[in-house]
Amino acid sequence: MTRAARGRGRRPGGPDTRGEILAAARRSFADRGFGATTIRGVAGEAGVDPALVHHYFGTKDDLFLAALDVPVDPRELVPTVFASGVDGAGERLLRLFLSVWDDPHARQPLLALVRTGLRQEAPESLLRQGILRMLLTPMRAALPPEEADRRVQLVVSQMVGLVVTRYLLALEPLASLSADDLVAWVAPTLQRYLDGPLP
Amino acid sequence: MTRAARGRGRRPGGPDTRGEILAAARRSFADRGFGATTIRGVAGEAGVDPALVHHYFGTKDDLFLAALDVPVDPRELVPTVFASGVDGAGERLLRLFLSVWDDPHARQPLLALVRTGLRQEAPESLLRQGILRMLLTPMRAALPPEEADRRVQLVVSQMVGLVVTRYLLALEPLASLSADDLVAWVAPTLQRYLDGPLP
Repeated sequence: MTRAARGRGRRPGGPDTRGEILAAARRSFADRGFGATTIRGVAGEAGVDPALVHHYFGTKDDLFLAALDVPVDPRELVPTVFASGVDGAGERLLRLFLSVWDDPHARQPLLALVRTGLRQEAPESLLRQGILRMLLTPMRAALPPEEADRRVQLVVSQMVGLVVTRYLLALEPLASLSADDLVAWVAPTLQRYLDGPLP
Repeated sequence: MTRAARGRGRRPGGPDTRGEILAAARRSFADRGFGATTIRGVAGEAGVDPALVHHYFGTKDDLFLAALDVPVDPRELVPTVFASGVDGAGERLLRLFLSVWDDPHARQPLLALVRTGLRQEAPESLLRQGILRMLLTPMRAALPPEEADRRVQLVVSQMVGLVVTRYLLALEPLASLSADDLVAWVAPTLQRYLDGPLP
């Protein structure tokens, strides 16, 4: 389910109220990072009751995804990659990643999030506590606990590197490689990080 | 040779002139990116003759490395990785990369450069035209021309991903993995990108 679809249902306070909450949330996440942003604080800045923020947007994670216009919900999608186990998960994860990032409409808000996030130095930043946590948690759950953190962070290091080189810097020919070619190159990397022998 | 050592020799115009040139260069690279920065423009902003900028700093690439305090010269170091061929170059390149980035003094100006660079959207940015070009050119020279661009960009995608996850976001445990462990995990990735079978 896309973020645009989610939350578009009832609008008891009218579109302005909803938009003001989103704008206040955007400012807070961008200026203060993820950890220091609270539903209460966002409600205060938007001049509404915190219960209304919960009513419109759900949890702080939901508000985060809505405010930053993240086009997919990693909490729903990443578990599907690992539903049939770790075998082949490198390719499934990469194809999911490419299906989102190769879509120009989905890519724009994600690039904006990455640009904003890379500016923040705090550990409670948008990237670490916001989006990466939502990506890493379901991946970690699929792996042996004592190896899981290392393995998923190595996987993420390669995916983040593709975000920067293929999408943000748009290096050619990397930016124009087909999804199939990229899968042939990079899926074995991800798979080895997921279940290759430990050093 | 470190950048700090280079260029510290003669100072005909006194330390202030040299510092003013560096400050003007820093502003120009950060505000305008790499492509739009010229020796002439920097000289104008510093109130000196362009010949003096050349005299102190050499080429625009030299000025770039000095102004942004890049602690090593990729034009000198990267070719040493490939001097004995592509075989084993994945590990040699990664060890070189780690020797620079794991040094906190070397890391600081590089992180500042990455943060500034990731803010710029122009293709003539610091990262693309500035530092990546200096890294990619000597790597590309070691590979078959028709495959070289793809291969070196994939290598760089993994290294950039480590910059972001290990150094910029400092994800744990990835940030604390030993160089040897990281080499065991990541050098095979780089080696496959350098000389693995084409898809």
